[in-house]
Amino acid sequence: MAQNIYDDPAFFEGYSQFARSKDGLAGAAEWPSLKAMLPPLKGAQVLDLGCGFGPFCRYAVEQGAAGVLGVDLSAKMLEDAQRRGPGLPIRYERADLETYQPPQAAFDLVFSSLAVHYLADFDAFAARVRSALRPGGHFVFCMEHPVFAARANPDFMKDADGHLLGIVDDYLREGERLTNWIANGVVKYHRLISTTINTLQRNGLRLDHIDEWSATDADIAAHPEWAEERYQPMFLLMATSLAPTNA
Amino acid sequence: MAQNIYDDPAFFEGYSQFARSKDGLAGAAEWPSLKAMLPPLKGAQVLDLGCGFGPFCRYAVEQGAAGVLGVDLSAKMLEDAQRRGPGLPIRYERADLETYQPPQAAFDLVFSSLAVHYLADFDAFAARVRSALRPGGHFVFCMEHPVFAARANPDFMKDADGHLLGIVDDYLREGERLTNWIANGVVKYHRLISTTINTLQRNGLRLDHIDEWSATDADIAAHPEWAEERYQPMFLLMATSLAPTNA
Repeated sequence: MAQNIYDDPAFFEGYSQFARSKDGLAGAAEWPSLKAMLPPLKGAQVLDLGCGFGPFCRYAVEQGAAGVLGVDLSAKMLEDAQRRGPGLPIRYERADLETYQPPQAAFDLVFSSLAVHYLADFDAFAARVRSALRPGGHFVFCMEHPVFAARANPDFMKDADGHLLGIVDDYLREGERLTNWIANGVVKYHRLISTTINTLQRNGLRLDHIDEWSATDADIAAHPEWAEERYQPMFLLMATSLAPTNA
Repeated sequence: MAQNIYDDPAFFEGYSQFARSKDGLAGAAEWPSLKAMLPPLKGAQVLDLGCGFGPFCRYAVEQGAAGVLGVDLSAKMLEDAQRRGPGLPIRYERADLETYQPPQAAFDLVFSSLAVHYLADFDAFAARVRSALRPGGHFVFCMEHPVFAARANPDFMKDADGHLLGIVDDYLREGERLTNWIANGVVKYHRLISTTINTLQRNGLRLDHIDEWSATDADIAAHPEWAEERYQPMFLLMATSLAPTNA
């Protein structure tokens, strides 16, 4: 079973202060890039794995999705999601993504934002995502960039000239990381970019596009606090689709 | 025109001392991983872009390749390649990979080892590689890992506990890097993993496998000097193939 840190009151309170929690997709720096990687949503059946407060579920409804299912482990987040979009045609379900088996061949898009780095078994997860897709379906997701996620507690150092440097530590050692992020002892899993891609492709999810997100000049003008994110990559975005089978 | 640093006498002398220069493929740490990504060579037409002293050209002949063409900018390296394999059915050609147009639809495998990070225009290079492949052909290559290549002069730092940390600097800023590696002022180009993959795929070279090379325990037992390479990734390997066209 995955750690349910989002239902920890102190963690939940801390996370709720983030721009992405208060402002939804508009508060998520990587959203414009992720949005550009999505297939058309009109008439689509959409599954959001790790839906949190539900901003993407609501976006999918706005875009004309025919059906939206949001899944998350956190009861607190799902309650909040319900509160933010009362009456919308979104079904929320509480489940652990480490084991959750979605309905088979039911979705045109599986989406996941900043959830897969909490999963110990990405291979089994990829197989379940694949099984949930209809022919021609897409899996589009973002995760913490492995350069960032490799270090238990990402930080910066300064060189002799006071120049800010990112640290890459233990990048090549995959596996569990105990981090102090909002709360102490948050469990994440570090996987290489290569492992992530190979695992998806081995499970029949072909990589169509990959984006190592970076703040633009316009982003930094609007959000000076993102300037640090020029020094090391923070988000990794991928669009994959069901590889044609030789039936 | 690309910088011809390998014909600089001091650089050539320094590079010639490397294990990979003296021992060929056996001296290249990443070779076993790269070898595992190759298609069968028996009867194949092979092009090696940036062939250097020719170790891969000779390997392809050993494996029964029907024809081998090695291309490099360095006259000194090509002379040496000829000397190491006299009488072998390998044709060597001196050319700048920044502009070299290989014969069209002529090869089953295009191979390239540690050369593409010297190229300013990877997009044009990928288009030429693609044009050189026969249907079903493969492009397999390795390059400096971008985490390593991003920093002009890759180095390590120690944290307060004396723990060795890799540095990732300016990873998100792509482009020219002037490095001091063997000689001063060696020109390389940093590109993200994502840019590399997207550029290949946009040019019809579909990613089949990717490997962020890491030394194994056995490697480090045999080569204690590779232990540092546990801290930051040094080599990036990719196998791609000609995507089927909708003819």
